[in-house]
Amino acid sequence: MALRLSTLFLRTLREDPVDAEVASHRLLARGGYIRRVAPGGFAWLPLGMIVLRNIEAIVREEMNAIGGQEVLFPALLPREPYEATGRWEEYGDNLFRVKDRKDADHLLAPTHEEVFTLLVKDLYSSYKDLPTILYQIQTKYRDEARPRAGLIRTREFIMKDSYSFDVDDDGLAESYRLHRAAYVRIFERLGLEVVAVSADSGAMGGSRSEEFLFPTAIGEDTFVRSPGGYAANVEAVTTVVPEAVPYDDAPAAVVRNTPASPTIESLVRQSQELHPREDREWTAADTLKNVVLKITRPDGEHVLVAVGLPGDRNVDIKRLEVSIGDALEIQGEIEVEQASDDDLRSRPLIVKGYLGPGLNLGEPLLGEKSVTGIPYFVDPRVVEGTRWVTGANVSGQHVYDLVAGRDFTWDGTIECAQVLPGDPAPDGSGPLEAARGIEMGHVFALGRKYAEVLGLKVLDQNGKQVVVTMGSYGFGVTRAVAALAEAYHDDKGLIWPRAVAPADIHVVATGKGAEFMAEAEKIVEELEAQGLKVLFDDRAKVSPGVRFGDFELLGVPTMLVVGRGLADGMLELKDRATGEARDVRRDGVGPEVAAAIRG
Amino acid sequence: MALRLSTLFLRTLREDPVDAEVASHRLLARGGYIRRVAPGGFAWLPLGMIVLRNIEAIVREEMNAIGGQEVLFPALLPREPYEATGRWEEYGDNLFRVKDRKDADHLLAPTHEEVFTLLVKDLYSSYKDLPTILYQIQTKYRDEARPRAGLIRTREFIMKDSYSFDVDDDGLAESYRLHRAAYVRIFERLGLEVVAVSADSGAMGGSRSEEFLFPTAIGEDTFVRSPGGYAANVEAVTTVVPEAVPYDDAPAAVVRNTPASPTIESLVRQSQELHPREDREWTAADTLKNVVLKITRPDGEHVLVAVGLPGDRNVDIKRLEVSIGDALEIQGEIEVEQASDDDLRSRPLIVKGYLGPGLNLGEPLLGEKSVTGIPYFVDPRVVEGTRWVTGANVSGQHVYDLVAGRDFTWDGTIECAQVLPGDPAPDGSGPLEAARGIEMGHVFALGRKYAEVLGLKVLDQNGKQVVVTMGSYGFGVTRAVAALAEAYHDDKGLIWPRAVAPADIHVVATGKGAEFMAEAEKIVEELEAQGLKVLFDDRAKVSPGVRFGDFELLGVPTMLVVGRGLADGMLELKDRATGEARDVRRDGVGPEVAAAIRG
Repeated sequence: MALRLSTLFLRTLREDPVDAEVASHRLLARGGYIRRVAPGGFAWLPLGMIVLRNIEAIVREEMNAIGGQEVLFPALLPREPYEATGRWEEYGDNLFRVKDRKDADHLLAPTHEEVFTLLVKDLYSSYKDLPTILYQIQTKYRDEARPRAGLIRTREFIMKDSYSFDVDDDGLAESYRLHRAAYVRIFERLGLEVVAVSADSGAMGGSRSEEFLFPTAIGEDTFVRSPGGYAANVEAVTTVVPEAVPYDDAPAAVVRNTPASPTIESLVRQSQELHPREDREWTAADTLKNVVLKITRPDGEHVLVAVGLPGDRNVDIKRLEVSIGDALEIQGEIEVEQASDDDLRSRPLIVKGYLGPGLNLGEPLLGEKSVTGIPYFVDPRVVEGTRWVTGANVSGQHVYDLVAGRDFTWDGTIECAQVLPGDPAPDGSGPLEAARGIEMGHVFALGRKYAEVLGLKVLDQNGKQVVVTMGSYGFGVTRAVAALAEAYHDDKGLIWPRAVAPADIHVVATGKGAEFMAEAEKIVEELEAQGLKVLFDDRAKVSPGVRFGDFELLGVPTMLVVGRGLADGMLELKDRATGEARDVRRDGVGPEVAAAIRG
Repeated sequence: MALRLSTLFLRTLREDPVDAEVASHRLLARGGYIRRVAPGGFAWLPLGMIVLRNIEAIVREEMNAIGGQEVLFPALLPREPYEATGRWEEYGDNLFRVKDRKDADHLLAPTHEEVFTLLVKDLYSSYKDLPTILYQIQTKYRDEARPRAGLIRTREFIMKDSYSFDVDDDGLAESYRLHRAAYVRIFERLGLEVVAVSADSGAMGGSRSEEFLFPTAIGEDTFVRSPGGYAANVEAVTTVVPEAVPYDDAPAAVVRNTPASPTIESLVRQSQELHPREDREWTAADTLKNVVLKITRPDGEHVLVAVGLPGDRNVDIKRLEVSIGDALEIQGEIEVEQASDDDLRSRPLIVKGYLGPGLNLGEPLLGEKSVTGIPYFVDPRVVEGTRWVTGANVSGQHVYDLVAGRDFTWDGTIECAQVLPGDPAPDGSGPLEAARGIEMGHVFALGRKYAEVLGLKVLDQNGKQVVVTMGSYGFGVTRAVAALAEAYHDDKGLIWPRAVAPADIHVVATGKGAEFMAEAEKIVEELEAQGLKVLFDDRAKVSPGVRFGDFELLGVPTMLVVGRGLADGMLELKDRATGEARDVRRDGVGPEVAAAIRG
């Protein structure tokens, strides 16, 4: 049955909604696909429903193709399992918490790891039952601080979430690979060019995680990429380690008074005269900046650490938070902040602004843990033989030609510095550039965390109980609609890819009279007989201009105009994306249009 | 792709779950269709999902067939529109209320009248836009005091809710008729025999409402029905009014001392000797019981009324609550309870236990409003000329041969009495019997209440603003699964109707060996080539007994056994419902089975 504009629950809008910040929101609202009904809450109108269901169908097919089995959980879940894994607290304000009439705590689940784990525990007990992949396409909730950008960040949204259950690491790797491949196929079918971004460096105990980002300036996630195809979250970028430098001929370290050098820039400027370098001018990258940081461990205890990094870049707290756990052998979530004056009061040997690494100049210095008790880590660029300008641990003095490995040592190397545009990609694929994107999907080799806490074990081949290892895989269905609208539009409206379009063909009848309309109806029937889904502009008293404008706004890929040419047995077929038009004969229009559409 | 028991996420259970009170819960849980994960919260497992989707598809088709357009609203909605219509309060504890991080009030919607009204207000403005029917198939929430009976009463469930919008009463009547017809077709296609029950008597301002109940002893809703097909909520039953009785020859009323008659039974017993009736013995139905009730108006004010009804039945408070509004000309919700001693303290003329109607015996009596100020209503059986035994308004005395219309009058007739088994159906279709049922659907001609409050008006043909009139129509998808399981099972398991079954055919391979299994696979392929959905028991090392038991438990309508007969080119086809089996030839098994299944 054709969708008919005369009765379709739809009013296209000429004006942008005042609250629409981004193109997808603007055009989906103007085209009557969605309607905002609450902060971060949208109603899907009939055309929007079709696009949504088309996407769901593709996701479902690809999940089924990798052996996924569809289930459906409640969104409203009891607190207990989320309490057990710590997520009841961890989610903080992002979680909608609900009390029932008996004052029992519930939540509107943002994701379902806990209950899937318990379900599999409930039904399965042997390695023979595994591997298993379960998924649902379901409404999720997040109490966003700032719902924004239309469908991109809402408080209620549809996601496909799946979970894999394997008996060992190889199994998990295979389930992960299957999901990753399925996601690649889904994005291909949707026509959405995404970037698979490593979400962490792999340093966190062998787990693996990638985000599929749709690159766009309006994205909320930042990442870096190279011309050669490398892409990663900034947190996951590993620094390319320079080779060690021979230092037999390096000049000896020397301390200088540097009275007017409060900043790296002023230090560099002053150094050109005060202690000129033999081969070239000093740059900020030659200075070694040392920073004391306060680490809050998962148990709430504080630890101080110092990090040394080239002075042309700042400490990246987020990168540090990811890498510091391994360096200090701490499990769990770690918070990092710059140490305050208060934190340093009990450590008078730390001279603010003139902090240097351990150094054999007869002074008690930072690098010697016996004195300060503070571990000292350096950026990977600090390799043996590199020469640095750095603080002398005496107010108003810096030291020059301090050679790493000769004049100071460190407790470890750590990713602590900003990634800057132009930095080399770790895989040698060229210089990195910063980019923004929308997270469309996430594949995550979870490992045994949830199974451990919730007691999901199976008997292995030797009759021994083993903890199951899991993966968790999310795909944002709601968000995919937004990303497609961002990717496929022009200033006149939407241009849907065929795979998700609300119809195959948009038929516009520009003539009048009962006879003319009867013929248009017949043409629609002939198109439908070919299995085409038709959106039929059968409205009375609407000008051709409005009709064509609505075609461009609504974004069905192809239009068939039934107009004046009908008298001569001709119709016009027009492509929304290219604007190209060509005549087609009235006779045999069904097969002809079907062939044109199906390529 | 066949569903394969070797990999299907399913464990059939031999034992009933301890918490399963009803057959549907027991069998759906044992068959691995659903799994309880929270109080009143169930996960749908793969087979359950298929049944659920099959039902949804039927509902969707029938809604589309009456011109319904599918949309989808959030479940989490802001308080304001529900505040405006008063439902934020009215729902009481049944509503899940949620505060967001900014402390703003939200609810998990049990039904969506308010936001559909606002959506149509948002888009439409003219009578030309109407009629419109919008629907969604969506997750709903109710904070049930006692979730029970598996899927029958849950806290989160899937419903189809639709809403019609019309410019006038005739339009609403047509939208109502369309929905009613669509529901009848849905139930027919599901194979669910339901009873359309008038939910109110039509006395409430012309609105109309019917519930579709699935009759079952485990139902929570009571209703009455007649052999001739009448069915109604007890509240909606109208009493068949007897004809007036000539009373020219009736004896005069006479007061007697009735010292030992605290109850109707003792009064009746005593009366046979004390004041024998000329034609037959007295019965409880000859006594007129008068009861003083306290009415709480919507504004919280109290009013006393008295009702007189035959002594063989009690006051039915719920029926009275429905009918009293019209009688007293009160709009809105009314509460009724029996007047307490406290309520009657200021009315010394009311003699408890000996209360009679207005009566010309020289005493100041109840029926005379000038004295007591209490309006007096009677049951419709109290018609002119009927003779009664009733209280004499004097302690220890009753009056006999009190004739309605001769000896006392009343302020109005009201439905206030219990409906008893054997009472005549109002439409003359025979004696009523009590029954129980599960509410599967509800069609409700809402009228203008929501549109009025929320300002949904359109311009009519004369350019005048008119308030839109609405209907609201619910269908319980989750509940339909339960009702079907209740309707179609035996002591061995489920017996799905074809329209909703998780598969068309259940193939059991009872032989062993690679060659045998390869042949079974080929047979499955041949069945699938016919478009049949196959559930294939391809498990290794499972006894035929367990396989047949699972077939009976899971309830696919037909089984094909690939067993020993295969050597002779024969297979066995078995019907789950009848248990009948017949041989079919291996050659051409696909078309043969398809024909058998499609009838």
